[in-house]
Amino acid sequence: MDRHACAALDAADPLAPLRDLFDLPPGLIYLDGNSLGPLPRATPARLERVAREEWGRGLIASWNTAGWMASPGAVGDLIAPLIGAAPKQVIAADSTSVNLHKTLGALLDLAPAGRRVILSERDNFPSDLYVAQGIAAARGLRLVPCDTAEITARLCDDVAVLMLTHVNYRTGAMHDMAAVTAAAHAVGALMLWDLAHSAGAVPVDLLAAGADAAISCGYKYLNGGPGAPAFLWLHPRHAARAMPTIWGWLGHARPFEFSPHYAPAEGAARFVCGTPGVLGMAALEEGVRTLHAAEPFGGMAAIRRKSLAQTRLFMDLVRGRCGGHSLAIVTPEADARRGSQVCLSRASGAYEIMQALIARGIVGDFRAPDILRFGFTPLYTGFVDVWDAVEALRDVLETGAWEDPRFARRAFVT
Amino acid sequence: MDRHACAALDAADPLAPLRDLFDLPPGLIYLDGNSLGPLPRATPARLERVAREEWGRGLIASWNTAGWMASPGAVGDLIAPLIGAAPKQVIAADSTSVNLHKTLGALLDLAPAGRRVILSERDNFPSDLYVAQGIAAARGLRLVPCDTAEITARLCDDVAVLMLTHVNYRTGAMHDMAAVTAAAHAVGALMLWDLAHSAGAVPVDLLAAGADAAISCGYKYLNGGPGAPAFLWLHPRHAARAMPTIWGWLGHARPFEFSPHYAPAEGAARFVCGTPGVLGMAALEEGVRTLHAAEPFGGMAAIRRKSLAQTRLFMDLVRGRCGGHSLAIVTPEADARRGSQVCLSRASGAYEIMQALIARGIVGDFRAPDILRFGFTPLYTGFVDVWDAVEALRDVLETGAWEDPRFARRAFVT
Repeated sequence: MDRHACAALDAADPLAPLRDLFDLPPGLIYLDGNSLGPLPRATPARLERVAREEWGRGLIASWNTAGWMASPGAVGDLIAPLIGAAPKQVIAADSTSVNLHKTLGALLDLAPAGRRVILSERDNFPSDLYVAQGIAAARGLRLVPCDTAEITARLCDDVAVLMLTHVNYRTGAMHDMAAVTAAAHAVGALMLWDLAHSAGAVPVDLLAAGADAAISCGYKYLNGGPGAPAFLWLHPRHAARAMPTIWGWLGHARPFEFSPHYAPAEGAARFVCGTPGVLGMAALEEGVRTLHAAEPFGGMAAIRRKSLAQTRLFMDLVRGRCGGHSLAIVTPEADARRGSQVCLSRASGAYEIMQALIARGIVGDFRAPDILRFGFTPLYTGFVDVWDAVEALRDVLETGAWEDPRFARRAFVT
Repeated sequence: MDRHACAALDAADPLAPLRDLFDLPPGLIYLDGNSLGPLPRATPARLERVAREEWGRGLIASWNTAGWMASPGAVGDLIAPLIGAAPKQVIAADSTSVNLHKTLGALLDLAPAGRRVILSERDNFPSDLYVAQGIAAARGLRLVPCDTAEITARLCDDVAVLMLTHVNYRTGAMHDMAAVTAAAHAVGALMLWDLAHSAGAVPVDLLAAGADAAISCGYKYLNGGPGAPAFLWLHPRHAARAMPTIWGWLGHARPFEFSPHYAPAEGAARFVCGTPGVLGMAALEEGVRTLHAAEPFGGMAAIRRKSLAQTRLFMDLVRGRCGGHSLAIVTPEADARRGSQVCLSRASGAYEIMQALIARGIVGDFRAPDILRFGFTPLYTGFVDVWDAVEALRDVLETGAWEDPRFARRAFVT
């Protein structure tokens, strides 16, 4: 394999033209779309239209005429096919943390009476653990964060909800959604998935897996913009009984009656609480449309094929060209266990190496304590980008460029 | 009083030039800024900059370099002087409903042990009542919605929290914040205010009133755009002990350590949960800046003087020029009891009359069952607008234009 062979892969790649959907800084190789997806070219014009026309001219009438009020369900319906859900099962709203609160609370109410444990992974998103800790404290339950290898063994008849992130944000390891869900159900527990590093990145089939609920954010692989509205999915078997922790006016069955009494809308719709943030929803919709643009070229299946080829290529090149620099590949080798990222660990210097790469226009990110994380996003990443990223990594390591003091440490974001 | 005299008032009005801060549709008289504030002229360019430069070029680095991550506190600090709060006491985040959930839950935890009642008004925002119903159901408490005149009498040692909206959304009646707060405290209850129709509309002094917490939305008088982020305020005496119902990563004392254990930030900062919606926050900041633009001309005190003059003028003109049409003025006559709106009731036809007015470019709104609501926003409403609105109302009533079938009923939004 060489750069020329990578260029040939790009030339043969049916998804390659989709890169033009994005406004990427020239010369940058952006391997951090799993933290913040880049700007779709359509988004600024959409925001301009929402602001100047819908808001500026339409004013309050736009709640109806521009579809603002219906946007949580409409954007949810656009997301649904990306995660194996059906229409009316997904709503876009609030932040991931708020949606987790609403959904975890709902599942705890539905779990068999008397169960006291929320089971999760020690290595889950800290934010998900915090939300669960808060709920556990309020309800007198216990959050049990266990090692990944122990999950099945720790499932027992005291577990009310198993709460996991499908693709681990630090390692890129992916759970077998159907198998883990079945294991949870086998002990009578309910299954809640966080899809933050899955939605738009790997094929997800929530209905086939029979999961109970899922949450996720909109600003990673969905390209919805910084702090985009998040989303949640609820299995239809819970539509009649699941109640969000927050009862809001837009989750009311008849919000415009302004009745003093809460009457929940059907299913996922009752998990909408407040008035939707219209600017964020519009940008999220444009972001989700970039994934739908892949439909004529094979959709999520084609994205997954290219993603696996790119992560495999990256791992092979790191092994072949960056040997002798104490890098370990943390991400699983098996395709079925790997998300759309590759993580390398190094006992020292991981932060500084990533800064040196960023200074050369190769943007991945560092995750404490020792992880170099590279996200691969087939909509806008080419095979030549993979080659160039590894060559830059090799150069940074071989020249010792990362030891320059200007690459000293500062804060970053998931 | 005639139109000429109104024009003279406008000519002498120091706030009149601030209208240029807004991009209002030509010919429209917009008396619905208490539902959705209009578009500030600065906002589209700000959104363009956030999208194209901060997001498109800066990508993840903008979480730090563009101040995205700090925005909940920074925008909160901009709001604080409008509501009598100090820096670091206000955060902008989430929706009003979500903030109410976080805040009401926190106050219930702080209230004297064993109290079982959340006291509110029957006539409060239905959405606030729904959130409280949900919390009451989860905790085995009772939400008691009483008549406005009964509030003081219903305060007793079983009331944990008194939850009220400062200015009633339907009638424009305003509570005496200091007196009601003192009455709640006299029985040991905590006081939570919703400022949706107050912030940016009437002077509010939360610290002087000694209230315990407040929440509000950003899209009414703050001009933050449709579904703008909401905000909340927490009295500093609760900074060490009040805990939000939702424990999120951005409310963590050290969010970037990614510790598996939640450790709350100090005070209001711990009420930030998820990642801020950057587009909405930017638009909210521009909206709040339109109120700060009034500072050189007297700030909230000048806004209030003009607002009272306009609501008084409107009521006087309705009485003087729309007699014999069965309109009743619902809003209190006393300045100290009146917010920045005037509501008229009519046993029949209120909806249709408002539609006929809207068709003539006079935009107020209808509130079920029988209310015509007119909001007065001194930043962009002139005295001639008040005159013209009443003349249009008179004409609609005298010609019977509102009985045209095209003004038949459909849904609208608070």
